Formats: sequence, C-alpha cells, structure tokens
Amino acid sequence: MEVLIIGGAGMIGRKLADRLVADGSVGGRKIDRLVLQDIVEPAAPAGAAFETRAIAGDFSKPGLSEQLVASRPDVIFHLAAIVSGEAEADFDKGYRINLDGTRLLLDAIRQVGGGYKPRLVFTSSIAVFGAPFPDAIGDEFHLTPLTSYGTQKAICELLLADYSRRGFVDGVGIRLPTICVRPGKPNKAASGFFSGIIREPLNGMEAILPVPKTVRHWHASPRAAIGFLLHAAGLDTAEMGPRRNLTMPGLSVTVAEQIEALRKVAGDAAVALIREEPDQTIRNIVDGWSRNFDPKRALALGFKADASFEEIIRIYQQDEMGK
Amino acid sequence: MEVLIIGGAGMIGRKLADRLVADGSVGGRKIDRLVLQDIVEPAAPAGAAFETRAIAGDFSKPGLSEQLVASRPDVIFHLAAIVSGEAEADFDKGYRINLDGTRLLLDAIRQVGGGYKPRLVFTSSIAVFGAPFPDAIGDEFHLTPLTSYGTQKAICELLLADYSRRGFVDGVGIRLPTICVRPGKPNKAASGFFSGIIREPLNGMEAILPVPKTVRHWHASPRAAIGFLLHAAGLDTAEMGPRRNLTMPGLSVTVAEQIEALRKVAGDAAVALIREEPDQTIRNIVDGWSRNFDPKRALALGFKADASFEEIIRIYQQDEMGK
Repeated sequence: MEVLIIGGAGMIGRKLADRLVADGSVGGRKIDRLVLQDIVEPAAPAGAAFETRAIAGDFSKPGLSEQLVASRPDVIFHLAAIVSGEAEADFDKGYRINLDGTRLLLDAIRQVGGGYKPRLVFTSSIAVFGAPFPDAIGDEFHLTPLTSYGTQKAICELLLADYSRRGFVDGVGIRLPTICVRPGKPNKAASGFFSGIIREPLNGMEAILPVPKTVRHWHASPRAAIGFLLHAAGLDTAEMGPRRNLTMPGLSVTVAEQIEALRKVAGDAAVALIREEPDQTIRNIVDGWSRNFDPKRALALGFKADASFEEIIRIYQQDEMGK
Repeated sequence: MEVLIIGGAGMIGRKLADRLVADGSVGGRKIDRLVLQDIVEPAAPAGAAFETRAIAGDFSKPGLSEQLVASRPDVIFHLAAIVSGEAEADFDKGYRINLDGTRLLLDAIRQVGGGYKPRLVFTSSIAVFGAPFPDAIGDEFHLTPLTSYGTQKAICELLLADYSRRGFVDGVGIRLPTICVRPGKPNKAASGFFSGIIREPLNGMEAILPVPKTVRHWHASPRAAIGFLLHAAGLDTAEMGPRRNLTMPGLSVTVAEQIEALRKVAGDAAVALIREEPDQTIRNIVDGWSRNFDPKRALALGFKADASFEEIIRIYQQDEMGK
C-alpha cells in the first residue's frame, strides 16, 4: 500500500518516515511506496525496502493536493502547518496554509471518487483549548482557542469529522501535547525553554528558565508522538463513532519535576547549567496554556504516553545523542 | 447609525426589520438607515421613520459583502443560511453559503480598515451540538455536530471569536433554540411537527404527531428570538471576554407539556385535532437532537427566554392571528 506524508520535511515528518522505513508496514499492512511532500523537497529516508518519492510544493496551492491523491494513497499523514507564532503574525498565511490547505486536501480526496476513502491522520494541537481551564481538561470540554493557529486547528477538526461522517474520508485527528525534548538548536518559541532546560544541559550548555518552577505543562516525547501517529493509522475507527478528534495522552509535570528528572539522569552538574531569568512576557503566554488533561477516550483506544519524564529524557539521549 | 440585515427576507429577518422600524433604535442608538439583503429582494418594512434599502444578491459571491459593508454599517445581523436539510442534501452549496459566505463577510469587514469594527450578531444554532449529551448541556460542553449544517455553524463560531479577538470585528454568536410556534404553512422539516401540533389546531386544522409525547425539546418563540438579536446588538462585549458564542436560553418541554399548554389556551377541541402517527425516521432524527441546556452565561448577560409554553402559544396568537 501507499503512504503519503504531507509536511514530510519537519521534525515529526522525518522521524515518522524513518520509522516507516524501519517497520516496513503500518497498521499491519506492508508499505509499497512512501511519498513525502513539503514546501521544500523532503529528504528521502535511507535504506527503504520500498519505493520512496519526494515532492516539493505549496500545499495551499490549488492542484497540489489533487496531484498527491491521484495515486490513491491508503494512509495519509497530514502534518503540514504554519506554527503558532507565525500564524499569529501573518493572519492571511496562517488561514491559507492551516485552513484552506486542509480543505483543499479534503476536497481533493472527496473528488477522487470510486469508493476511495483513505485513512487520514491529522495532527491537531492542545492549542485548540483556551483558558480558563478546569484542573484537568476532559474529553468533552469545549474548544475556545486563543490563537489563530488554535482556531485553524479546531476548524480542521470539525471538517475532518464532517467529511468522515459523510463517508468521504476516514479521519482521525490527534491533539499532540508539547513535544519534549525537541532536538536541534535553541529557538525563540515561547515554549522553547521546556526542551531547552533539558537539551542544553545534556549537551554541556547553559539554558535559560524564564518562568517559575511551579509552571505545569503537558508533554510527550517525539517517540511517543510517532507512536500516536502510527496507532491512529491502524485504529479501528468504528470504535470512535462520529467523534473523530482525540486529545492524546501525555505527562503533566511541573518545571521542578522536569529538573528533578534531569538530576536523576545527568546529575547536579547538568542542573547547575539552568539559569533562572524571569521573563514576564513568556510567563503571560505560558499562563494561558493548558497544563493537564484527562484523555480517557484516547487511553481506552490504546494510545500510550511516555511512562515518566525521566523516560522522556532518556529517549532524547538514545534517539538524538546515540546513548 | 446604519443597520444591515443579511438574510433579511426570511421569517426572522422580516420580524427583526419590523421591530427595528417600531423601535427606531437599537442598543440605545437611533437608526438612520436600514439595509436588507437576501438572495431574493427583501420587502422593505412599512412605515419606517428612517431610510430603508433592499439589496438582492448571492451572499457567497465575492464582491457582495464588500458592497454591503462599504457604507460602514454599525450593526450587522447575519441571519443568512442554507437550512439543515438542504445543507445535508447539497454538500457544496451548504459549505459555500454557510461557511464561505460568512468568511467573505468577515474578510470584507476586516478590509474596510480605518478602525472600522462593527457589532456583528451571528445566528448560530443548537445543531452545533451532537449526541450523546448530558441531561442539560452546559456552557463548556464541546461542539460535535452531526450534520454539515451544524459543522458550518460551529466553524463560523470559531471564526467569529478569532476575528473578534484580533480586533477586526465585534462579534456575538447566539445559538438559537428551535423556533416555535413558527408561522406559515406546514413544512416537511423533521422539526416541523413541534410548531405544527400547535399552529394547525389553533387554525382548526388537523396536525400529525410523528413522535412519542415523551420527546423533549428546546424552544423559543419568534418574539424571544428577536429579543435575543436586539440584546446581542446592544451588549457590552467586554463582559464576554474572548468567548463570543452563547447558547441562548429557551424552554425545555416535552411534547406532552406542549399539548397540555395548548389545552389550557385553546381547549380540548384543539387538542383533539392532533393525530398520532408514529414515524420512525423522524423519531431517529429527533433522538439525535439536544433537548435541554443550562445557559448560565447568556442568562447572566441578560438574555431572556419565554416564561412558559403557554406564553409561546399566546405570542403566536397575538403576533400571527391578531388575537
């Protein structure tokens, strides 16, 4: 069967492609062909036992989605998105890529016809929720996003459910936790410090902590995220009914708990590299974010979170530092 | 000031226009000009002490919304929609009118510039909710529509909130209960019997009841609905924060309670005109509908429901039968 990854050049897209190459199958079905799309040409994963193809193109340009679905891929992972900060800074671009692009894809799938109904795994985000929150956000809490990015994700969730209900596609939307430890260099995203305070010390570098250690947040490792995507691809959607969007399980931990896990894994010397430098702007942004969930449905459907924050740190060491 | 009604030829649009003519003001501000738009040219209300203008045109056609907002209306009532049954039967038309039309309007408003930020009152629907439900749906229950119409309304709610948050418009979305007693002839809508079992007997005609008398539903009179629209037009939206969409108050009554109210108002002879003729198809549709709400926010913000189902019947007699 054929697998298509839209947004295949990003961090999650590359890790997913590598995993598909390693597994050779998804949802119990052998992969014959893997197509990767992104705005820049994605690197083809090495060592694939099946055909791979990379396509560069703008996902929000009419015609591209038609081209991508013409070969009738069986499983489509839709990871493409303008990130939160950029969608807030560039209103039109955010709506064009995150909303119109997704709708073009859904309509392209619908128009293939002949009974074509691929599994479409859509990555949504906990940004669909907006404060004030209960202590733990349950599966029936309403979506009141406080960013344009969250709004666009929430709209795509509604479209995914309706197109699935109408039988045009077999969709599963998964709301990813914040991915931690994110590999790579420090970045300026408001959430960057959650990864930075672990990643930089592990690499012998100083890290800045801009918020109090009491701040609580909702995390999943990149490996757990890939697990969510693969599980969603193989899920029996009859069990889901018409509610096609799920909050993924994660770990709710405070910054203090993150730091204690780092101490256990890498010792006091690593922890000493974290420098507190309060930043009220970042504090205010982070205070509006959801911090804990009660994702009963996803757990009942077999999605699995990381076991502990220590495990999250060890996954980074194993997957990114070769330890 | 100028008032614009989009979808001004419908039942609610006409009643709203008549009320604006009678009041001469809205939200405490004097009306200088009232513009009515619909796909067919709306009838101008009689006896207006201000300028009235009617525009026929397709709301989903690029350019029309630009034309409608060029004169910078201060209050816009957006009532235009393809109804539930038609949006389900004609997928493309439903999305074009109910979603694309609304987005074109929002973007037209945004592009006027120069600090233009009109009050936009958007009529949403309890169809944004989908079963299974709690006994009474609270203000924080999630939106999982089970129709394309409900999906389109839910998406417009998200857009309204985001465009308001960004400062492009000052939006209030109101989820209307089922309107009862709907004036006019019997129709084939699945919900038609809720009005039919009152309206037809009051007019000496037989009415069909296709569901058991235990069925419970959520009602508001046309007069209450006009009250919601006017209250939304004058509301201090600073009190709402970023959550711009509200479930309107209503009356949760069973069919048996509807019938007893009819008996009190019009006697046994009227009730005898109701003939039970069970229809499993209608039963199944109605079973998926929400039946009771706990609309705390709207009540706290001053929205008012009808006092009783008897009052709903008397409003029909007064407003439609001249009694």
